[in-house]
Amino acid sequence: MLQIDRTMLLVDESVCRANIRRMATKAHQSGARFRPHFKTHQSLKIGEWFREAGVESITVSSVVMAEYFSGSWHDITIAIPFNILEIPHVNRIDPACAINVCVLSEKTLTHLQADLQREVGVWVKIDVGYHRTGLQPDDNEVEKIVRWFKAHGQSSKMKLRGFLAHAGHSYSAGSAAAIRTIDKSARDTLEAVRDRYLDSFESLEISLGDTPSCSVVENFRGVDELRPGNLVFYDLMQYTFGVCRLQDIAVAMACPVIARHSDKLVVHGGSAHFSKDSFTDSDGNDCFGWVVDQKSADIADGWNAANTGLRLTSLSQEHGIITGPRKQRERYDIGDYVLVLPVHSCLTGCSMKAYRTLSGEHLDHL
Amino acid sequence: MLQIDRTMLLVDESVCRANIRRMATKAHQSGARFRPHFKTHQSLKIGEWFREAGVESITVSSVVMAEYFSGSWHDITIAIPFNILEIPHVNRIDPACAINVCVLSEKTLTHLQADLQREVGVWVKIDVGYHRTGLQPDDNEVEKIVRWFKAHGQSSKMKLRGFLAHAGHSYSAGSAAAIRTIDKSARDTLEAVRDRYLDSFESLEISLGDTPSCSVVENFRGVDELRPGNLVFYDLMQYTFGVCRLQDIAVAMACPVIARHSDKLVVHGGSAHFSKDSFTDSDGNDCFGWVVDQKSADIADGWNAANTGLRLTSLSQEHGIITGPRKQRERYDIGDYVLVLPVHSCLTGCSMKAYRTLSGEHLDHL
Repeated sequence: MLQIDRTMLLVDESVCRANIRRMATKAHQSGARFRPHFKTHQSLKIGEWFREAGVESITVSSVVMAEYFSGSWHDITIAIPFNILEIPHVNRIDPACAINVCVLSEKTLTHLQADLQREVGVWVKIDVGYHRTGLQPDDNEVEKIVRWFKAHGQSSKMKLRGFLAHAGHSYSAGSAAAIRTIDKSARDTLEAVRDRYLDSFESLEISLGDTPSCSVVENFRGVDELRPGNLVFYDLMQYTFGVCRLQDIAVAMACPVIARHSDKLVVHGGSAHFSKDSFTDSDGNDCFGWVVDQKSADIADGWNAANTGLRLTSLSQEHGIITGPRKQRERYDIGDYVLVLPVHSCLTGCSMKAYRTLSGEHLDHL
Repeated sequence: MLQIDRTMLLVDESVCRANIRRMATKAHQSGARFRPHFKTHQSLKIGEWFREAGVESITVSSVVMAEYFSGSWHDITIAIPFNILEIPHVNRIDPACAINVCVLSEKTLTHLQADLQREVGVWVKIDVGYHRTGLQPDDNEVEKIVRWFKAHGQSSKMKLRGFLAHAGHSYSAGSAAAIRTIDKSARDTLEAVRDRYLDSFESLEISLGDTPSCSVVENFRGVDELRPGNLVFYDLMQYTFGVCRLQDIAVAMACPVIARHSDKLVVHGGSAHFSKDSFTDSDGNDCFGWVVDQKSADIADGWNAANTGLRLTSLSQEHGIITGPRKQRERYDIGDYVLVLPVHSCLTGCSMKAYRTLSGEHLDHL
């Protein structure tokens, strides 16, 4: 049984599993491999919920995460430009676990070829409009990387897998229609790059899949691989993007009420717990979370996906300030806790380093 | 020897120890007890550096932190409004460790008296102008709390220690003169409250001490206890407040360079490492960190406290974007790392959960 006596990040397992199943089904129906990004939850136990939905390959965003999951997963893509300083770490990962890396330069290939003591798959990272990182589709470096593989052929410790992108600009698209446009453009870009080299490498694939696009677009025919991550929990940011429903948010922070003032509640739940992402709420104020109501006296029943009007409007390291209608605030006193839907579930998970299910089970986080 | 091959939070032990010594000396000269806030570093090993500077009592901001330090410290104040749900946890802390809690209501005292199985000291938290939490000096609840102690006297499991405040508005004061004004006002407020009750409780103390005030004000005569925390590391935020010198910042994040673009460097170092605090730089842009140069080829020599013009201007979970003068950027390539002074060292420590000294020693974090 779950006993809430201090700040805890709760996961509603049924909501979480439904999110996973929905995306697994969509990928399956599109004929795309579902390679979920595990950077959101970073949990071996939650990973098993994906496996039970048929998932066999995963994405992570650091070599450290690859190390963490390599004991239980056998196909991992490290979806961040590869850090050549970590080649020795990659060499120590169990060879039974296939590792794929992202490459943006011929120089990285040279280092990998010199120092790798195992095989890795290579994805070339393409910028499809987010402009964070990745090669422009017409960058000469793309040509050089492909030529490198032509020259080295079977002697290479690396296999060219294809072209990978993250259309992160979908996060600020503003509407489902705009997200679809971004996704279409990203796919067209990746397909065009891939098609240039199909004569030389017939099994080249394309891989993409940010959570907004994967949630809003219905069919991914032609895409080989989808890599959304945030879908496992969703959060208020995705909700405000129109990407999920409030009832799809699978995590809430339980924060004990530690003070009551005439204009606010103070809870134990600050930037050390939520990190510091916020959005501008409809009233024009910064918002770090929304308070929701527990469905019944038993936390095992979960929470109502309904707006109570109470908001987490300010954070310091350990303190959170809850404001909103007096009537709502007056329902809480010291000795109670509030449940807060987080703005950005990935960073909230990173900050808490652990989860509790509604039945009280402890779930690991890297 | 320190080998930097992935993202690491480095601590320059000599800078850190000098920061500790400076504050310990100032407190000693003022006749005030130095009870440093350990929420900044949350490290047993760094805690020992304080002990070597003569510190015997500490501050934390959660019961969890109190548990962590209770094995090696014997006098701990939990400086956050006490969460009555955690009384059973407090009961389990080694009775050889004195625990002090912060109270804002008579109701909390009633719960403590009913459920405590050990003694605790009680500080009444006063709002001296920050307006985050605490009782107004003239709030009737202050009177009720003191009256509760008069009524319960020696039969209580609790001892009234005095009045405690955090003048957190010093962070946005804007100048050293304004910080001094805030500190003066905070002291006057606490002294006035304390003086009201000296007839009944002659050993009542006052406790305050945010890092800006403690750094800028020279003499704390009349203050019984100082509780600054950030001083152990300082950070860019304190530097921009004029509270520390650049050379007093004792931590830097080593971030491997993972991509080079025409307009920026991409490093492995994102909001998962730095958290998400930023300030507006002199160019009007968000800034999440400044890049500094290593003093020599040997990282053991530390870094130069000088502005290179390279800035961490954007963060996603694992990626950081470094912008600035082309000439500075071109000194770095993949396989190198940059050293970044963080904006907010407390949250950076919370995110990293570990430190490395310049000689390669691993330092714990809760």
